[in-house]
Amino acid sequence: MRILVVNPNTTASMTETIAASAKLAASFGTEIVAVTSAMGPASIEGYYDEAFAVPGLLAAIAESERSGADAAVIACFDDTGLDAARAMASIPVLGICEAALSLAAFVAQRFTIVTTLERSRVPIEGLVQRYGMATRCKVRAADIPVLSLEDPASGAGERLREEIIVALEEDRAEAIVLGCAGMADMARELQAEYGVPVIDGVSAAVRQAEALVALGLMTSKRGAYATPLAKPYSGMLKSFEPSGGAA
Amino acid sequence: MRILVVNPNTTASMTETIAASAKLAASFGTEIVAVTSAMGPASIEGYYDEAFAVPGLLAAIAESERSGADAAVIACFDDTGLDAARAMASIPVLGICEAALSLAAFVAQRFTIVTTLERSRVPIEGLVQRYGMATRCKVRAADIPVLSLEDPASGAGERLREEIIVALEEDRAEAIVLGCAGMADMARELQAEYGVPVIDGVSAAVRQAEALVALGLMTSKRGAYATPLAKPYSGMLKSFEPSGGAA
Amino acid sequence: MRILVVNPNTTASMTETIAASAKLAASFGTEIVAVTSAMGPASIEGYYDEAFAVPGLLAAIAESERSGADAAVIACFDDTGLDAARAMASIPVLGICEAALSLAAFVAQRFTIVTTLERSRVPIEGLVQRYGMATRCKVRAADIPVLSLEDPASGAGERLREEIIVALEEDRAEAIVLGCAGMADMARELQAEYGVPVIDGVSAAVRQAEALVALGLMTSKRGAYATPLAKPYSGMLKSFEPSGGAA
Amino acid sequence: MRILVVNPNTTASMTETIAASAKLAASFGTEIVAVTSAMGPASIEGYYDEAFAVPGLLAAIAESERSGADAAVIACFDDTGLDAARAMASIPVLGICEAALSLAAFVAQRFTIVTTLERSRVPIEGLVQRYGMATRCKVRAADIPVLSLEDPASGAGERLREEIIVALEEDRAEAIVLGCAGMADMARELQAEYGVPVIDGVSAAVRQAEALVALGLMTSKRGAYATPLAKPYSGMLKSFEPSGGAA
Amino acid sequence: MRILVVNPNTTASMTETIAASAKLAASFGTEIVAVTSAMGPASIEGYYDEAFAVPGLLAAIAESERSGADAAVIACFDDTGLDAARAMASIPVLGICEAALSLAAFVAQRFTIVTTLERSRVPIEGLVQRYGMATRCKVRAADIPVLSLEDPASGAGERLREEIIVALEEDRAEAIVLGCAGMADMARELQAEYGVPVIDGVSAAVRQAEALVALGLMTSKRGAYATPLAKPYSGMLKSFEPSGGAA
Amino acid sequence: MRILVVNPNTTASMTETIAASAKLAASFGTEIVAVTSAMGPASIEGYYDEAFAVPGLLAAIAESERSGADAAVIACFDDTGLDAARAMASIPVLGICEAALSLAAFVAQRFTIVTTLERSRVPIEGLVQRYGMATRCKVRAADIPVLSLEDPASGAGERLREEIIVALEEDRAEAIVLGCAGMADMARELQAEYGVPVIDGVSAAVRQAEALVALGLMTSKRGAYATPLAKPYSGMLKSFEPSGGAA
Repeated sequence: MRILVVNPNTTASMTETIAASAKLAASFGTEIVAVTSAMGPASIEGYYDEAFAVPGLLAAIAESERSGADAAVIACFDDTGLDAARAMASIPVLGICEAALSLAAFVAQRFTIVTTLERSRVPIEGLVQRYGMATRCKVRAADIPVLSLEDPASGAGERLREEIIVALEEDRAEAIVLGCAGMADMARELQAEYGVPVIDGVSAAVRQAEALVALGLMTSKRGAYATPLAKPYSGMLKSFEPSGGAA
Repeated sequence: MRILVVNPNTTASMTETIAASAKLAASFGTEIVAVTSAMGPASIEGYYDEAFAVPGLLAAIAESERSGADAAVIACFDDTGLDAARAMASIPVLGICEAALSLAAFVAQRFTIVTTLERSRVPIEGLVQRYGMATRCKVRAADIPVLSLEDPASGAGERLREEIIVALEEDRAEAIVLGCAGMADMARELQAEYGVPVIDGVSAAVRQAEALVALGLMTSKRGAYATPLAKPYSGMLKSFEPSGGAA
Repeated sequence: MRILVVNPNTTASMTETIAASAKLAASFGTEIVAVTSAMGPASIEGYYDEAFAVPGLLAAIAESERSGADAAVIACFDDTGLDAARAMASIPVLGICEAALSLAAFVAQRFTIVTTLERSRVPIEGLVQRYGMATRCKVRAADIPVLSLEDPASGAGERLREEIIVALEEDRAEAIVLGCAGMADMARELQAEYGVPVIDGVSAAVRQAEALVALGLMTSKRGAYATPLAKPYSGMLKSFEPSGGAA
Repeated sequence: MRILVVNPNTTASMTETIAASAKLAASFGTEIVAVTSAMGPASIEGYYDEAFAVPGLLAAIAESERSGADAAVIACFDDTGLDAARAMASIPVLGICEAALSLAAFVAQRFTIVTTLERSRVPIEGLVQRYGMATRCKVRAADIPVLSLEDPASGAGERLREEIIVALEEDRAEAIVLGCAGMADMARELQAEYGVPVIDGVSAAVRQAEALVALGLMTSKRGAYATPLAKPYSGMLKSFEPSGGAA
Repeated sequence: MRILVVNPNTTASMTETIAASAKLAASFGTEIVAVTSAMGPASIEGYYDEAFAVPGLLAAIAESERSGADAAVIACFDDTGLDAARAMASIPVLGICEAALSLAAFVAQRFTIVTTLERSRVPIEGLVQRYGMATRCKVRAADIPVLSLEDPASGAGERLREEIIVALEEDRAEAIVLGCAGMADMARELQAEYGVPVIDGVSAAVRQAEALVALGLMTSKRGAYATPLAKPYSGMLKSFEPSGGAA
Repeated sequence: MRILVVNPNTTASMTETIAASAKLAASFGTEIVAVTSAMGPASIEGYYDEAFAVPGLLAAIAESERSGADAAVIACFDDTGLDAARAMASIPVLGICEAALSLAAFVAQRFTIVTTLERSRVPIEGLVQRYGMATRCKVRAADIPVLSLEDPASGAGERLREEIIVALEEDRAEAIVLGCAGMADMARELQAEYGVPVIDGVSAAVRQAEALVALGLMTSKRGAYATPLAKPYSGMLKSFEPSGGAA
């Protein structure tokens, strides 16, 4: 089985972190294809960056589907472009926030997401609401820029740990969810430090993607995720024009 | 006061319908600038089209802000790109779904949105949930393609009326919200026919935009809608690279 | 267009504050008629006062409708008597809490209402719940009696500012809603001080009332707001007896 | 123990129906004092009537408290004036909707309220929402005027039965709640006919009132139900002016 | 009328505390039969203990029903086994959490449950959610083992009082609900100390049980609480095999 | 990796159906140990059966954990005993309802559970609510006894298909979730018939269990799932007495 893991920002070093976690998580026999988006923002910090990450990640998913990928993972905790990708692709597509929350819910009744910047907190709260976890899950920001996670000297790890401690004490969190793909490599270490489950969404999504493929479950093409209808697209986005499907 | 009304699809004839409604709704002294998106899908029918409508509508808003617009209205009932636009712009930005629901709530306790295609029903239900109207508002699809609204021979008007009648009888709707910008010109006629308030989102948004401007209310730049941080964008979307703001 | 703004308490000096804000907010060509309720409590602080403010405000609305008003605004943040007024009148009726929240939602994802007394906090939380804003909006009380807002020496302004600062820091509010009609004149000043949108409900309601009138939207008489049925009323409230309408 | 049961409409024949049910429900040793409101509407059908029923019912409760009643029941299914009464009185005050729902929840997971007129359906849905029963309880209207329940020839009983059957079949209701005080005498008969619990709010409220009195539980005077503050009331409502309490 | 009050843990001294409160709460003419479960855990602290308390409490309810009890109360604040008991028995069955919350809601808009151990906090939050009280009710743990309530020297009373004070100050609780059957004897004393309603679930449930019996309300056997179908049970639980009922 | 799949009813033929699906779903290298509960009901149809299925399933999980299982799946769609099992065990425990819903949410926005008997519908709606899926997921009963699924001549398959068709048409379901472990072998066939994703909870739970084990995620022992405290158990359940853990 082949699973695409697309980093929807254009920072290749973060793709490496993500790829390493994805490969560690994958079953024997699963091939992980990690791809950096070919266009758009260098990091995704808020709604504006999100919007411009979508064409690149959809292009990557479309291409990998054509070349035989069985499932795709969008490795950004905002689950950027997830609905559009599910409508576009035939293969299953996973977001790392949704995947992480689903595993967290199996091992804890109350948990806290610790993300990067304050500006991402409310958008993630929106996802938590949408995924039905609002009574169980809080969101905190550690005030660390996304790319600072790539830089050991940035102090990002310390800030993250401080916020985890607040989550354990004030929220009485029973588990921690890491709220950024760039934290994917830290889950096991933090779990050992704090003695509670620490969930990385990249790993979670890879495993959930495998589950869907193994069980023969594809995105429903009935209703909200129906195949895009054929119609003209114009301007620089012409190449994304859908060739059609049933209404 | 100058208000941009952007049609986020590329169909100029629909922009004309929208512009006419916007001008009819505007106060004396308000200039309506109606713009057709310069890139993207010819109509927005589902999540995929939505995603590719965003760059074009953001470009239109950014340009109009630079040339002195006081507020912007996104004339698609999916409130496409609304969060990104609010983060990007300093001027207030309105979506027509949110604006229509807010006026509907002032004149009725229970109401029903009648939209175009079934594939748009669930996305709009997501907006209804997000805007806190889920206990008051149902969503129905009349099974009419968006652009059929431009064609008097399409029978779209009849289908729309059939669904309004079902909404009045089965949902016991006290008001009807028209769930597509392309229906903007039909509100007054349908209101006369059915004797209940019929709300068009384009008109609603123009008036709400005027209200915000008159009262000196701009989008908060604290938290979720903070100005996008400066960072490199690459590829065909390079031109959207943000020049920065406070973290 | 003529809009009634009724102060449902009997304190004329507060009506002046309200009238000034309403006039400042109104469009060119809108006539604001500000009326002090002719009976009932001198200020509305809790459920009991609310109940006895209703006859006076309904009398004022009925009279102004007879003399040609196009819409009415109830200038008390508890939205006192709003449902009864909508059932009674043909013209649109706005409450200032509902109107303020609808504008706040256009400019911020998270906001906090700062009201006067603790005893009003839970009733306003009930409104926030009813209007679908519970996940986005907190309510705080500054512990200031309503009429102290009329007295510059009362220290009410200082207490209000202290609570706004708490809202910004602890709630991470992106905007502030002023939770009493008596604060209507402070919005612009506070907005300048704190750099976030500060919304006054009186101004918001005036503008929303104009929007409804301009768009030809009246309260639905189907369902919950159906015209009161003709029936005998007795005792001191005899004069409010409804002359009837369709069941 | 003495319990006031106030019929907040002015129709004495309905008070008799209510009084009979209340007396049947009361424990040995409980005195039921049934009072018809001295002012206001002859029946309560919608928000407008509700508002004008409040002064009369508050007067009745205040007077009975002065003369030694231990608790009060407001015998209208809209729970008219309940919050104001709780703020005003020291003795516990029960609404029959809230009381009926609490007993229904002890004997069934899903139940349906059958009320009189369609115009009362949405207001009662608001109560169901407020009392936290929205996932368990539906509301239906049998389209019968309140006072037709007093007239055996009106066919009201037949219409009520028709709607109960729909509730059992379509809602899969496990129990029925009678949604009008005027139906108080029909509960046992309907229960025998349909073989499911049928709950009358008047009886439920009398028993809940007894429970509160026996256990020494009075309305909290901390927060939302704090004693009304002393202040001038003017006009015809002057007599309701509160003499004060702690802020 | 005879009411079974079953202590679902096996600690007889706690049954005495419970019995005393139940008898104090009961009406003249009500016989309280207090029973200690014959099998299972000595105290119920978390989900695991809960599961093993169920057979014993169901056995006690079945036996008391056979010998003529009119209703049953399960005296554990987790409402352990409540759904199974309602399905099994013909007589009404009350849980003390549900009963306490229903009375609390009649005397306060906002209240806080103070329970024993942190591990019981989230399970009780689950009940609060299920009973529709999540917007009104907080849950706190005083960190006192259940059986320490039986030991005056344990300091449990002091810890409980500390947490009540936090609830009053931080939650702005208007009433307190005692979150353990073992606290049943403390309600009146604490109410006197803090000047707010303090609700004990055992007393509340006894009174609610009386209400149901007096009004002829039995658990609905339609739907979720249908009589268990006849079928073989094997192993040590063979004796609980149901003899059948309608599907 | 070794995964226990426990059938919490005592019908061995159903265990075979479950085991076959579990094995088909498992990854290469995963050993499935399918166990029939040694005590309790022959099928689980409603709350009463559920309660008596718990000791047997907990015994099976405890024993398999001692003999080296890495995770456990409870193969009953009511997620019987799930919380107690998570508190008891160190290894992860999955319920098939929760697992099925989490996969359904990855492939569809709206879906319907089709279960066996009407009496199980409301309990499953309770789970849907708890798992945060109430806005997305409906529950229907096909009116087929659980064990009729084992009998090809029972017509159960036809009834199930009829209800699936109603779900697709009336609920506009985009996917179907099979609401009974006894339907585990039908998912692929039904998926082929109806062209929408059909999810079997047994397969889903096996894959989710593998994911948790592979990622090193164990049930949090902080908070609600803390290890049961040591304490005496008496009577026939003595053998389940916990030997203790940290408070």
